[in-house]
Amino acid sequence: MHAYRSHNCGDLRSSHVGETVRLSGWVHRKRDHGGVLFVDLRDHYGITQIVADTDSPALPILDRLRVESVVTIDGNVKARAEGTTNANLPTGDIEVFAREVTVQSAAAELPMPVAGDQEYPEDIRLKYRYLDLRRDRVHQNMLLRSQVIASIRRRMIEQGFTEFQTPILTASSPEGARDYLVPSRVHPGKFYALPQAPQMFKQLLMVAGFDRYFQIAPCFRDEDARADRSPGEFYQLDFEMSFVTQDDVFNAIEPVLSGVFQEFAGDRYVTPAGEFVRIPYKEALLKYGSDKPDLRNPLLVSDVGQHFAGSGFGLFAKITDGGGVVRAVPAPNTAGLSRKFFDDMNEWARGEGFAGLGYATRKGGEWGGPIAKNHGTEGMDKLAAEMELGPDDGIFFAAGKEAEAAKLAGLARTRVAEQLDLIEKNAYRFCWIVDFPMFEYDEQAKKIDFSHNPFSMPQGELEALETKDPLDILAWQYDIVCNGVELSSGAIRNHRPDIMYKAFEIAGYSREDVDTNFPGMIGAFKYGAPPHGGSAPGIDRIVMLLADEPNIREVIVFPMTQKAEDLMMNAPAPVTPKQLKELSIRVVADS
Amino acid sequence: MHAYRSHNCGDLRSSHVGETVRLSGWVHRKRDHGGVLFVDLRDHYGITQIVADTDSPALPILDRLRVESVVTIDGNVKARAEGTTNANLPTGDIEVFAREVTVQSAAAELPMPVAGDQEYPEDIRLKYRYLDLRRDRVHQNMLLRSQVIASIRRRMIEQGFTEFQTPILTASSPEGARDYLVPSRVHPGKFYALPQAPQMFKQLLMVAGFDRYFQIAPCFRDEDARADRSPGEFYQLDFEMSFVTQDDVFNAIEPVLSGVFQEFAGDRYVTPAGEFVRIPYKEALLKYGSDKPDLRNPLLVSDVGQHFAGSGFGLFAKITDGGGVVRAVPAPNTAGLSRKFFDDMNEWARGEGFAGLGYATRKGGEWGGPIAKNHGTEGMDKLAAEMELGPDDGIFFAAGKEAEAAKLAGLARTRVAEQLDLIEKNAYRFCWIVDFPMFEYDEQAKKIDFSHNPFSMPQGELEALETKDPLDILAWQYDIVCNGVELSSGAIRNHRPDIMYKAFEIAGYSREDVDTNFPGMIGAFKYGAPPHGGSAPGIDRIVMLLADEPNIREVIVFPMTQKAEDLMMNAPAPVTPKQLKELSIRVVADS
Repeated sequence: MHAYRSHNCGDLRSSHVGETVRLSGWVHRKRDHGGVLFVDLRDHYGITQIVADTDSPALPILDRLRVESVVTIDGNVKARAEGTTNANLPTGDIEVFAREVTVQSAAAELPMPVAGDQEYPEDIRLKYRYLDLRRDRVHQNMLLRSQVIASIRRRMIEQGFTEFQTPILTASSPEGARDYLVPSRVHPGKFYALPQAPQMFKQLLMVAGFDRYFQIAPCFRDEDARADRSPGEFYQLDFEMSFVTQDDVFNAIEPVLSGVFQEFAGDRYVTPAGEFVRIPYKEALLKYGSDKPDLRNPLLVSDVGQHFAGSGFGLFAKITDGGGVVRAVPAPNTAGLSRKFFDDMNEWARGEGFAGLGYATRKGGEWGGPIAKNHGTEGMDKLAAEMELGPDDGIFFAAGKEAEAAKLAGLARTRVAEQLDLIEKNAYRFCWIVDFPMFEYDEQAKKIDFSHNPFSMPQGELEALETKDPLDILAWQYDIVCNGVELSSGAIRNHRPDIMYKAFEIAGYSREDVDTNFPGMIGAFKYGAPPHGGSAPGIDRIVMLLADEPNIREVIVFPMTQKAEDLMMNAPAPVTPKQLKELSIRVVADS
Repeated sequence: MHAYRSHNCGDLRSSHVGETVRLSGWVHRKRDHGGVLFVDLRDHYGITQIVADTDSPALPILDRLRVESVVTIDGNVKARAEGTTNANLPTGDIEVFAREVTVQSAAAELPMPVAGDQEYPEDIRLKYRYLDLRRDRVHQNMLLRSQVIASIRRRMIEQGFTEFQTPILTASSPEGARDYLVPSRVHPGKFYALPQAPQMFKQLLMVAGFDRYFQIAPCFRDEDARADRSPGEFYQLDFEMSFVTQDDVFNAIEPVLSGVFQEFAGDRYVTPAGEFVRIPYKEALLKYGSDKPDLRNPLLVSDVGQHFAGSGFGLFAKITDGGGVVRAVPAPNTAGLSRKFFDDMNEWARGEGFAGLGYATRKGGEWGGPIAKNHGTEGMDKLAAEMELGPDDGIFFAAGKEAEAAKLAGLARTRVAEQLDLIEKNAYRFCWIVDFPMFEYDEQAKKIDFSHNPFSMPQGELEALETKDPLDILAWQYDIVCNGVELSSGAIRNHRPDIMYKAFEIAGYSREDVDTNFPGMIGAFKYGAPPHGGSAPGIDRIVMLLADEPNIREVIVFPMTQKAEDLMMNAPAPVTPKQLKELSIRVVADS
């Protein structure tokens, strides 16, 4: 027989009754029934009930051991007595009567328990992560992550993508977030940077003639942590394709994302490939008040400023006259709610820093509230008709400068839907946000600047740059959004130096600025570059969505704390003077 | 029709003749046949011949363009005239008559050509790696690497392994090679280290109860480059298993390695899974003069010192009397070779820093050379009979202290086989080196120390440590070797604090030393650790073997130079004073 096990702890069934077996695992729980000891033995695969009584030499040993000790049990499989089977456990029909036990590793008293669902402070969980990872939910999250990544890889390869490992010790990038730096020993005073993303490398792979690249790529940003952003490192499904239009990118990645979600979503709805809604950026800001719309929320924002021109409600008229907007958010079937519901929403909006959230109530077609009173029944009825509201649907109003009002309307849309429990459950709804503007007017600098990514291809290419109002030019740029979570940005890239120089010129940068700041990319594009584009959905966020975990640290096997510390490995830590000397650096004391 | 292509450049066959097609790619070669221009259009998938004549508006445009420009061709598929088909090209039966051409990207004059097989200096190749990668051999090597890694992943998953991503920003390790350090912004004066290997993490994953872990893991060592070692980063197939013996590890990984090699070896022989020879370390040093034996070499070293006790050849007798050894390397069928062959070998050995390589020649059973003369025919015949040599087989002798003589015999074994062209071609022969000694006597420090890995489990466990001569204790430690290349070390780990304290005590370290230097591991093992073991075959080396490339930089997509520079991205590079200030470090000028 094998030194440690004939079966694993998830294997045994009624069909094994009578067999002599050997199992190894952790003592998950012990229950002493006076002379009969029950042990739940746990390994990666499951739990098996072990029994020892006073006839068994295993009893005193098991009795003495602490939970989480590792043992090997030799015993016989027995059917459990009627009424004692456990339908929740695949091995619940049997138990193993222990003849012998070998202690592989005796556990000391634990700093945190493994069995049970108690919540423990994060610092304890992360310091003893190897114990925390034994807990079923955490264990399952890690397996889910692994399966999701394996599925993504399989699907990308099936779509003709090739995975490459791009460098991790690379150059500091002049754009973007803060880099992690690595001092060079061989070149004193010089530093590598860890990649914020393999953006340059994937574009160079296209220039090198590889047609479809992908990578489950580690990325590094020295930014502070948030619930959905781990300090330090994160992973993205980085991909890029040559000789493609925006449609080709969408057609390549929708089956991968939809397929992975369908595979792991259980009975939850997933937008099928080919049906990802495409929402122009401008429309998203209007209808959803956000470029990350959650399509599970059925409410849509309406632009209703024109209704108040010359209206009895002078405030909205004044706002629209001054170039502002009025946005309306439906509050369906709120006839039965008290005025407090509406007033609380207004208070909430003020708490968020907005001037306030106006409202009109409605019950059986009757309007209530100051706005409706001033605006008049006829005007309100017309507005409600246009918004396709019923006789018991109230309205919230967000008014002001466009960006502010859109944002408030978006937040109110979410809050109203949450309060009224309107958000669809058990669904993953995907959309693309498309047609981002190429340029915007920078009010502070009083000049035109890039609004998002300067390296995206403008729609209409060189001709558009030369003939159109820059603020009317759109970019071949797109975001993937699922349930209000932005999974990634992407773009068809600008692969033409002439178009790039022109685009930067519009934003006020000279040819020399471009050559100086992006020498690698511009240089490479001069030796024959294909049209190309791609994106990079965040792996951690995909797993968070599928695991239904709001905190990214629940889907990372060894995460750092929010303060960017690894409490288990004790990192970061001081290093020796010899190490610093080799790297030609010195620590500067805080002053 | 698609904006860029209806087919790729490897698609078209005779069956497409008559079709209107659109192709995009790079102008690989141009040949002007006076009014008829032939262009080899290349993309990731292949090459298609484009033809333009004076009837085509494409002609002047193509004529003007430099090679490596990117174009889109609209044209018609035609059968090539008899006698002009190209059997070496999958598309060699057809050509595309160009009606129109769109220039996607005009190439400037190239710093290095793409077509052809010329060798170029490494600094040019790496600076313009995106051009170098367009060359067929380099392109194919990268695809091979990608396919090998995908195959390894698939096979590991099929064997029940789960892939995890372990941290890249982690703690400096007190053992091993030099770390790359990353200064922490949040914790001034403290540093992360990039992992030399995920050794700690994979063992902690076992302690966390995951049964079979693997990772295609990026590893980082700040060591100088060699042909088979890239500066900076490299990848290994890191794996670990719980509740296993050494046999289990071998049985798990042999099918993966053998399977991958069989998949990509073409018609070359590969040792089948289950047939990897297991050679004890001591035997390897004797028979092959190396712990990295190349089994394609049929020659075996013999220990022949006992033949010279009281022999007429006093030098060897003196050496064996003084505790030294005499090792013999056969030189089969060398009767026809001149004395120069043997003398050159001796010269070579001296050039390598050895005292010399003795020899005896033999022709038709007649011995020649001073050793044979002094030792006598009878003695030589006896020696040859024991070595199972034929009447035309000469012998080389390496004599001296055991380590030196074994090393020389090993090098001579390789050189003799190379010179005589005895090394098997087209074969991948795997073996395990097993039974490494746990301890060795450190002549310098005059004490017993660990000979390889202090964290391996000693064979016989605690009992062996308490009862045996330390120098007789073997470890559950093993290397995988293929064709003389060490792919990895591995071990069954010591998971028991009591055994670890005892092993370190023998090597002269206190319990406190262990607790101070390895707190994470020792701490974790106290809360229930399973017996576990694994290994970590080098990915880059596997691909080097399969691609038959002697230089590791030929199998890495964006390698650094031997001086650890990325010439394309310009890394490492100076950073700004602001960046240094944020990290609380200062560069110390060379003094």
